[in-house]
Amino acid sequence: MNPMLGVCYYPEHWPEDWWETDARRMAELGIKMVRIGEFAWSRLEPTPGNLQLDWMIRAMDVLGRHGLKVIVGTPTATPPRWMIDKHPDMLAVDRDGRRKGFGSRRHYDFSHLGYREEAARITRILAEALSGHPALAGWQTDNEYGCHGTTYSYSAAARDGFRAWLRQRYGTIEALNQAWGTVFWSMEYNGFEQIELPNLLVCEAAPAHELDFRRYSSDQVAAFNRAQYDILKARRPDLPVIHNFMSRYAEFDHFDVGETLDIASWDSYPIGHLATSNEPDEIKRHYMRQGDPDNAAFHHDLYRAVGHGRWWVMEQQPGPVNWGQSNPDPLPGMTRLWAWEAFAHGAEVVSYFRWRQAPFAQEQMHAGLLRPDSEPAPAYHEAGQVARELAETGIAGVAGQGRIAIVYDYQSEWAWEIQPQAAGFRHGDHVRALYSAFRKHGLDVDVLPPSTSSLAGYDIVAIPALLAWTDALREAVASFDGHLLVGPRSGSKTQNFAIPARLGPDLPQNLLDARVMRVDSLPDGVEIAVKGGGAARLWREKTEGGAEVVMEDVEGVPVLLSQGKLFYLTASGDRALIQRVADYLIAEADTPILTLPAGVRCRTRGGFRIYVNYSSGPQTIVPAEDEKGYVLGGTELPAAGVSVAKLATAG
Amino acid sequence: MNPMLGVCYYPEHWPEDWWETDARRMAELGIKMVRIGEFAWSRLEPTPGNLQLDWMIRAMDVLGRHGLKVIVGTPTATPPRWMIDKHPDMLAVDRDGRRKGFGSRRHYDFSHLGYREEAARITRILAEALSGHPALAGWQTDNEYGCHGTTYSYSAAARDGFRAWLRQRYGTIEALNQAWGTVFWSMEYNGFEQIELPNLLVCEAAPAHELDFRRYSSDQVAAFNRAQYDILKARRPDLPVIHNFMSRYAEFDHFDVGETLDIASWDSYPIGHLATSNEPDEIKRHYMRQGDPDNAAFHHDLYRAVGHGRWWVMEQQPGPVNWGQSNPDPLPGMTRLWAWEAFAHGAEVVSYFRWRQAPFAQEQMHAGLLRPDSEPAPAYHEAGQVARELAETGIAGVAGQGRIAIVYDYQSEWAWEIQPQAAGFRHGDHVRALYSAFRKHGLDVDVLPPSTSSLAGYDIVAIPALLAWTDALREAVASFDGHLLVGPRSGSKTQNFAIPARLGPDLPQNLLDARVMRVDSLPDGVEIAVKGGGAARLWREKTEGGAEVVMEDVEGVPVLLSQGKLFYLTASGDRALIQRVADYLIAEADTPILTLPAGVRCRTRGGFRIYVNYSSGPQTIVPAEDEKGYVLGGTELPAAGVSVAKLATAG
Amino acid sequence: MNPMLGVCYYPEHWPEDWWETDARRMAELGIKMVRIGEFAWSRLEPTPGNLQLDWMIRAMDVLGRHGLKVIVGTPTATPPRWMIDKHPDMLAVDRDGRRKGFGSRRHYDFSHLGYREEAARITRILAEALSGHPALAGWQTDNEYGCHGTTYSYSAAARDGFRAWLRQRYGTIEALNQAWGTVFWSMEYNGFEQIELPNLLVCEAAPAHELDFRRYSSDQVAAFNRAQYDILKARRPDLPVIHNFMSRYAEFDHFDVGETLDIASWDSYPIGHLATSNEPDEIKRHYMRQGDPDNAAFHHDLYRAVGHGRWWVMEQQPGPVNWGQSNPDPLPGMTRLWAWEAFAHGAEVVSYFRWRQAPFAQEQMHAGLLRPDSEPAPAYHEAGQVARELAETGIAGVAGQGRIAIVYDYQSEWAWEIQPQAAGFRHGDHVRALYSAFRKHGLDVDVLPPSTSSLAGYDIVAIPALLAWTDALREAVASFDGHLLVGPRSGSKTQNFAIPARLGPDLPQNLLDARVMRVDSLPDGVEIAVKGGGAARLWREKTEGGAEVVMEDVEGVPVLLSQGKLFYLTASGDRALIQRVADYLIAEADTPILTLPAGVRCRTRGGFRIYVNYSSGPQTIVPAEDEKGYVLGGTELPAAGVSVAKLATAG
Repeated sequence: MNPMLGVCYYPEHWPEDWWETDARRMAELGIKMVRIGEFAWSRLEPTPGNLQLDWMIRAMDVLGRHGLKVIVGTPTATPPRWMIDKHPDMLAVDRDGRRKGFGSRRHYDFSHLGYREEAARITRILAEALSGHPALAGWQTDNEYGCHGTTYSYSAAARDGFRAWLRQRYGTIEALNQAWGTVFWSMEYNGFEQIELPNLLVCEAAPAHELDFRRYSSDQVAAFNRAQYDILKARRPDLPVIHNFMSRYAEFDHFDVGETLDIASWDSYPIGHLATSNEPDEIKRHYMRQGDPDNAAFHHDLYRAVGHGRWWVMEQQPGPVNWGQSNPDPLPGMTRLWAWEAFAHGAEVVSYFRWRQAPFAQEQMHAGLLRPDSEPAPAYHEAGQVARELAETGIAGVAGQGRIAIVYDYQSEWAWEIQPQAAGFRHGDHVRALYSAFRKHGLDVDVLPPSTSSLAGYDIVAIPALLAWTDALREAVASFDGHLLVGPRSGSKTQNFAIPARLGPDLPQNLLDARVMRVDSLPDGVEIAVKGGGAARLWREKTEGGAEVVMEDVEGVPVLLSQGKLFYLTASGDRALIQRVADYLIAEADTPILTLPAGVRCRTRGGFRIYVNYSSGPQTIVPAEDEKGYVLGGTELPAAGVSVAKLATAG
Repeated sequence: MNPMLGVCYYPEHWPEDWWETDARRMAELGIKMVRIGEFAWSRLEPTPGNLQLDWMIRAMDVLGRHGLKVIVGTPTATPPRWMIDKHPDMLAVDRDGRRKGFGSRRHYDFSHLGYREEAARITRILAEALSGHPALAGWQTDNEYGCHGTTYSYSAAARDGFRAWLRQRYGTIEALNQAWGTVFWSMEYNGFEQIELPNLLVCEAAPAHELDFRRYSSDQVAAFNRAQYDILKARRPDLPVIHNFMSRYAEFDHFDVGETLDIASWDSYPIGHLATSNEPDEIKRHYMRQGDPDNAAFHHDLYRAVGHGRWWVMEQQPGPVNWGQSNPDPLPGMTRLWAWEAFAHGAEVVSYFRWRQAPFAQEQMHAGLLRPDSEPAPAYHEAGQVARELAETGIAGVAGQGRIAIVYDYQSEWAWEIQPQAAGFRHGDHVRALYSAFRKHGLDVDVLPPSTSSLAGYDIVAIPALLAWTDALREAVASFDGHLLVGPRSGSKTQNFAIPARLGPDLPQNLLDARVMRVDSLPDGVEIAVKGGGAARLWREKTEGGAEVVMEDVEGVPVLLSQGKLFYLTASGDRALIQRVADYLIAEADTPILTLPAGVRCRTRGGFRIYVNYSSGPQTIVPAEDEKGYVLGGTELPAAGVSVAKLATAG
Repeated sequence: MNPMLGVCYYPEHWPEDWWETDARRMAELGIKMVRIGEFAWSRLEPTPGNLQLDWMIRAMDVLGRHGLKVIVGTPTATPPRWMIDKHPDMLAVDRDGRRKGFGSRRHYDFSHLGYREEAARITRILAEALSGHPALAGWQTDNEYGCHGTTYSYSAAARDGFRAWLRQRYGTIEALNQAWGTVFWSMEYNGFEQIELPNLLVCEAAPAHELDFRRYSSDQVAAFNRAQYDILKARRPDLPVIHNFMSRYAEFDHFDVGETLDIASWDSYPIGHLATSNEPDEIKRHYMRQGDPDNAAFHHDLYRAVGHGRWWVMEQQPGPVNWGQSNPDPLPGMTRLWAWEAFAHGAEVVSYFRWRQAPFAQEQMHAGLLRPDSEPAPAYHEAGQVARELAETGIAGVAGQGRIAIVYDYQSEWAWEIQPQAAGFRHGDHVRALYSAFRKHGLDVDVLPPSTSSLAGYDIVAIPALLAWTDALREAVASFDGHLLVGPRSGSKTQNFAIPARLGPDLPQNLLDARVMRVDSLPDGVEIAVKGGGAARLWREKTEGGAEVVMEDVEGVPVLLSQGKLFYLTASGDRALIQRVADYLIAEADTPILTLPAGVRCRTRGGFRIYVNYSSGPQTIVPAEDEKGYVLGGTELPAAGVSVAKLATAG
């Protein structure tokens, strides 16, 4: 399938006599795919049982007549008001114990069995009514699971579900007491019915208690998705089921949800994502009209892994959004660049959000391809350009395996939120810092789940800040013959959130003769320089053992250890140190790299290498040895520019 | 009526045998007006129905004997403890859903019908008992409506009232669904009984939902005041009914409350108001002992508008207060300056708060004219000086119409709090910035409500950051032959908080051929320089149309557009840009200005021009051409100094 | 009793067959005292009434066999889960009205009578079962009263208790109304049953209302401790009852709790305490691996006063902790230094927390003397060194009365939290600033309670920022013939939190002819320079009267007044001003001082002077005239070094 453009459309927002024109203009622009329906429940079922699906079929008819394919979203993220009267306790309860009300969206509790049945019911109804429609190209389940902090609910439903889940996991209360270490503060339970949720305590809960609640909550999201997946696939096994995930969002395990998806997708809003990130202010200012040069790419590669290779951008930022503290206009060209970058990383579809800016309700300040007065917004023209360029360049193929991989683990995100030990210590920050360091050299980087059982084919694999080894990953590490970077803090716990008997990093001594004796955690702003450049910050381990010291800090504390091709990093590093470590491994592994100007990134897909320029000025690239000219652009990239080189090795 | 001094007095706080001495000293000092009673309910009715008004009559007798006039406050801001047993649900509920308890003040819910009846009852009792007292000069309703965030309550009473109000406003639920755009996220209602208050949602409510709740809440304040007004006026139509408003407080529409007042008043605490404002730290430091040089004046002019020309300062800061994070001593002379400045802007009465510092309870660190040991505090002597100077100078007349006017709109304050789009974007900031820019040139500035239907007589009128045009204002603009400054963001919405069909600023094209295509909102601290000086910040619009470009920024984006005498400002400006724009319009309108040293301000009243020096050092003024000498002070103003010039044109 | 080392041990956390080895290693290391049991309730009584004390007796047997003495903690800080089913309302309610749940520790309400009986019951059971054990050396009541903000509960139990306490205190509701000044805002009560707790009000409660609630809550802690004390002493009057207090924690009156203790102790975590303090960032960075050089010492002297001379460190930081935002590793040697410093200030026992780092539950990142794998952590070796040095030097004797004393008053801590008037004004900051200024000159400083009735024997006594005079203290001041420093803000209120009739500092005029007319409170960061050096900040009083002016600021406002040997400080000072004032009094009192390098401190105990070096580099001390050589170390102190000099005057 050649990559294509899509758009998100809400026929229920507009007079029916506008649909035809809208569809025609979409087709003329080069749009191929249209997502509809994911917030339309109150129009599909205005009162209980009163189903009104005709209008949606008519909308699909119109779109189909113009050659457009349709993704239908199940509307379960926005149950109608009357549903609350049927199930008053389906509303989730926040960590402060307050039940959240109706009037916005995502007002449901994943643990509420009554609502889960309602969600299955409307999914069945849509599957039955629309599965045969010729324009139908697939389904989206719900919308942005977990958005607005909705993964967790501290309700009676969640408590009851959690107790049952624990009983399933541990079998006996003695096993749970052992696993959680409840003897510590007389927290021992006599039975599962005594267990409460870990909110509103006097001080912190046992970390294993918190972690299990996060695992439980994550499992409910996966179960919610699985229910819809099973229904939708039963009708049309051939049509893909998709969900649209988010940026830097880790409240549930996306790999688990990905088990019942055919395609992963995500909603890419580079400017808003940078503004709401924890990046330093100088980066936020510098890229305020572009977004972080590595953040979208990282998520492209992450969701490529979640989707087992198949992934889309379901919502692509088309201009200023409405949900940042401030919402700057993108640099001209960025809505083109972002689409090209997604295609470079293997996206099958990039779908702009939304067709026409809605003049009413919560998102009225969120741009669309059209203005509220139906005139083209700037992104309209840029989308059209991308459509033409896709056709002209004939870009195709998949984003193949890179030479570099990094393991990303949702459980580790939860673990270090629960127990940072140094405020600001995050799993994801370690993963993204390495991702960026490798990518700056033009390397294709893959993201791997912690269930990975083989690392074959990679020059270098990094496993930073991992809570605990899975059996699979331990085996993968043992059998890997490439260069492996582990640490800091990797393997510092068991799966029950306890310190391993032989201390971290909990690898066999024949692999790595090092163990972490002690942690020196540092306030934000304190840095310990490393000899040769860079510095440790936040986290610093003191180790013992016979591994070789590759780098050490000015106090003589080892920073990078090695034993054969296995490297252990003992500290959280600043950008310079992380770059040095990445560079060292690249040199050791003899991995070929590119020289890229500041702000320029690239990725290979099929027989092409796509370059994008995130900087706000022009940059010049040097053609790589494996390239044979450009099918788009050239060596000079203007701000927000894109160049596509053809690879010599390609057909 | 010549301007006069007053004081706030609490006879119930002191032994009755002190009253005589207090009254004598007040009269000797030059005080003419005394406000009493507004917190005395527990002494007027110690137990339900047990009325004890004699002491208040005796206090009025004593004051009257010394020639003092009395304003009696209805005590409805502080219902006694026993009232809570009668009406447990009269206590308001905050946005987090917590009912607020007894033990401070303003512990009532404007929507609670039972308490509204109690408030009417005690008002009737006071009206009956005191209306005939010869010392009575008027009434104050309640005290500082809305103080401590009490305009809004999220109670069942408020919810029920809101539903009834919506039914009244929209007639049908379909009309409400249309107005709020509830189709957006399946938020459609089947009936008014399904509507909840917009708090404790998963994410934000529809902006029209929030705005209507603010309108509803504002209406309850107005209704509360109207009930007392009607009762008080029924007895003594000749006596004025007054309310004391606050600084930078916009939770309800003061113009609406002003409809049932004879005189508006406000409580002026310049130092505390600056300390708790959003002014930059350097301003807070620089004027820490004086207050912002334009803030009291702006409120003088605002409440002059609210009171249809009649207004007082009901509480004037007399020294350090107790409610700031810190509470600095005023610069010597400031309690004189503030009074003179109020008189300059047309105050009929300036009433110091309070006579004697209370040694007990919440405000024990709040200064009075007397210390707790009854010795004079510094402000005692300054108040005496003002009294003498009022007599000596014979200042009189009214604060006439200025050449400049600015529209201030409470609804626009609410709207941009609900939807700032750029954090920090506020209606009031735009109004005050322009106010200050014009006033620095010695110009008299009027504040106008959005119900204004004629702008006749003004050289320049500014309408910044207005949510939506009223019919009246649209007509006023169309018929205005002076210079008009509109924008940024003015007319960017309909009254239902939607984007107008033809986009903002929503004026007829023959008036202004410009429409806002897109908004570029900027993080705090990012500035886009404007050619010629100044910079855009926070908010920046990109427009299309044929209006002439007067100013543009360094990126070539138009900043000030014009079409004839109508100017449209596309951006929020820093101080320099706002000053440039004001200066440009002054030049275009050929409005004569004064040259004032830094920190010096002035206002004309009757045949006088009063100069005040907010700076911490001496300043020299140049006599204006229309002046013929000074009746107080001269060209040299010491720190905190006051000079009063006589105008040549005056009688 | 010669000073000795102890350790905290949790036999319930480890296999019983490890106990023997643990005990042997403790004894070999030089440990003499072991605290056990304070969190073990769920093992002592796994289900209601099912008592299992045998294991604890066996653990005591093992420890005793190795010559170790045992302190048994009552386990009342961690009631087991089944207790909540018996007493669901024993869980405390926070200021926001939320009941706090089970799952961590300290989940009880001091006002809950049912739980108080349960606590007495388990105390009786332990007293009966263990009192005769030969290894038993004493008891610890509960653990860290008030930790995690648990002194205050806003429950029905607390409300009922508060009402009864008020009835006891005031007798009539009229007396309460008078004391609280409830007339101020019609807050008058008709009966005690109308009084509510001072949380969730519209604005602040009357300060006397808040202060009385704090007094009430403090009394409940004292009553809770008294109940256990009485039970434990009834069985074994000879064994000491101890409680372990905390750092910079003032929610209840520790002197009151100290009335039913034989020995005071505290838990000293210098690094965590500095990190969570309000010290400036530069101090936090500078001493990040040592802790504040005066904070541990101040608490040593404070708890020496609370324990009427007898005190321990019950928990001594052994390495990184887990509860700071970050948790740096101590400088090598600090766990030795801290112990030596405690002994210098008279500690009988310094007990490291804990024996072995627990690999599970909440504190798994908190170091112990052993690592989780039972290997020695660095502190293990440092503790052994201390044990040897104690034996070798034969240090003994008590920490005698110093020449300097400072009054510390918990009620004043509460008062200025309730009414800071200048944000950041704290009683404790004034006390600690003076403590540090005197101690930098090598002076021994005593901390005195406000109940002190004689100041005899001191050269200099300071009473800063005192709410109100007690009769005892007023008498002590009147009869003192040394140099006395009072102010700022001392005596500025009555015991009912009202301004005294003759204003502060409320001392007889023959002692001090000065009264505070007015307060100028300053924003953080604003300083008013004092002539000669230093500056006033936060708080600045303007006084009248005939006292002599010793120092004045650049505006001519008196800063230090004197009348004979009584000095009154009118301002909060920066470090430089406080040092100047201390130096001035030292010179006036002719008190001999030492010259110490930066970061070096000392204290005399018995015939020894112990020097400690908190700086991160070596320092050289000059032997004092009263010393005759060193029994440990010498004039050169490395970083974290300790030297012990023998005094010439000693036996």
